[in-house]
Amino acid sequence: MPEKRAVVLLSGGLDSATTLAIARNDGFQICALTFRYGQRHAIEVAAAERIAQHAGVRDHVIIDIDLRSFGGSALTDSTDVPLDRSLDEMSNGIPVTYVPARNTIFFSYALALAEVRQTFDVFAGMNALDYAGYPDCRPEYISAFEAMANLATKQVVESERRLKIHTPVIGLTKSEIISRGLELGVDYALSSSCYAPSDEGLACGRCDACQLRLQGFEELGLVDPVACQGHPTPPSS
Amino acid sequence: MPEKRAVVLLSGGLDSATTLAIARNDGFQICALTFRYGQRHAIEVAAAERIAQHAGVRDHVIIDIDLRSFGGSALTDSTDVPLDRSLDEMSNGIPVTYVPARNTIFFSYALALAEVRQTFDVFAGMNALDYAGYPDCRPEYISAFEAMANLATKQVVESERRLKIHTPVIGLTKSEIISRGLELGVDYALSSSCYAPSDEGLACGRCDACQLRLQGFEELGLVDPVACQGHPTPPSS
Repeated sequence: MPEKRAVVLLSGGLDSATTLAIARNDGFQICALTFRYGQRHAIEVAAAERIAQHAGVRDHVIIDIDLRSFGGSALTDSTDVPLDRSLDEMSNGIPVTYVPARNTIFFSYALALAEVRQTFDVFAGMNALDYAGYPDCRPEYISAFEAMANLATKQVVESERRLKIHTPVIGLTKSEIISRGLELGVDYALSSSCYAPSDEGLACGRCDACQLRLQGFEELGLVDPVACQGHPTPPSS
Repeated sequence: MPEKRAVVLLSGGLDSATTLAIARNDGFQICALTFRYGQRHAIEVAAAERIAQHAGVRDHVIIDIDLRSFGGSALTDSTDVPLDRSLDEMSNGIPVTYVPARNTIFFSYALALAEVRQTFDVFAGMNALDYAGYPDCRPEYISAFEAMANLATKQVVESERRLKIHTPVIGLTKSEIISRGLELGVDYALSSSCYAPSDEGLACGRCDACQLRLQGFEELGLVDPVACQGHPTPPSS
């Protein structure tokens, strides 16, 4: 029986680490795909490498893409990342950490890699609850990308099979994601979610991504194993 | 009145040079976008720069993208470009010069740049006749990309306007494209279409792109101003 292969978008954050574990648990051989895109949190790329290694992934493609030359986002230029926002503020409008067309660019590379690896399955860790303000995290966007992808490549045109984008955590809360990941053996100490880490790589604990993550662990009665500034080692639970 | 701006994908070939001239003639201020994608015909990038300069374009973004690490195409790896194919052979199946998901990747960057430049118009020089074998040159593919793009970005979500991909030469024959370009003052001597140029940048005259182009000029009773190997300077007409 031929092996089932999937391309998994792996950012190094909590959601994509969980998505990778779900894809493996579904029986897929993994080709992980990570981008260096001039993000200020390049530490995430190192996290992606640790997570892939921990999961036994031998096929990990890391691509440099140059979004800095475009600008337009707090994640790629010198705009400040907002800190200490309430959940209400987070769910109100598109945040400055939005990167123009980022997921479309990421999925386009995933589509190319899927064709070269001869797989029709792409996994991505987007989440519609935490990232309500990001247009390219919505289910209707994913469906539209799939429809386009299924007209775009040689392998779909020459085959009966359709490309499928799996987003297994899109409808889960952060604590549900963490809970599922822990069942599957994810080591969240290896991951990195912070939008504004210190030079030493410590999470700020105050940006949207940190707050959502800390709250997710807290709801489960757990402590985030990632060290934050002010808490260089995680407090014991 | 605010200026009308458009992003124009400019490869340095004949079709995109004509498309740029059409966009200018339609009254758009141009932001040209060119990719260095490990293509063996990097000479095209220099051609794109000449064409943009000749057209008075001051906003020309050149992006490095790394498709070589994926492989899977005669344009990015060491597969031989086929020469001396008949028109029948060209129209039969997807050629080895197909690059996996190439136009999807190109359009994704164009979508990002359109958002940063606050324009809703993208021009691309794809042609459905000459490139019948390329799935991502078909009108239905373009429509599907537009539908996806109109769910993907902050500017479309926050505005009433829709992103439009203009493909003004998609239904034209090569000679019709050349004829329209000459009316608009395109200097085709600046362009480069060859898939397999010599180290000195001379066109081979034998790959699909060269043959289609030479035939296009011939049908108009003209001589292609680009020098070919064996014809270092164009023969006088």
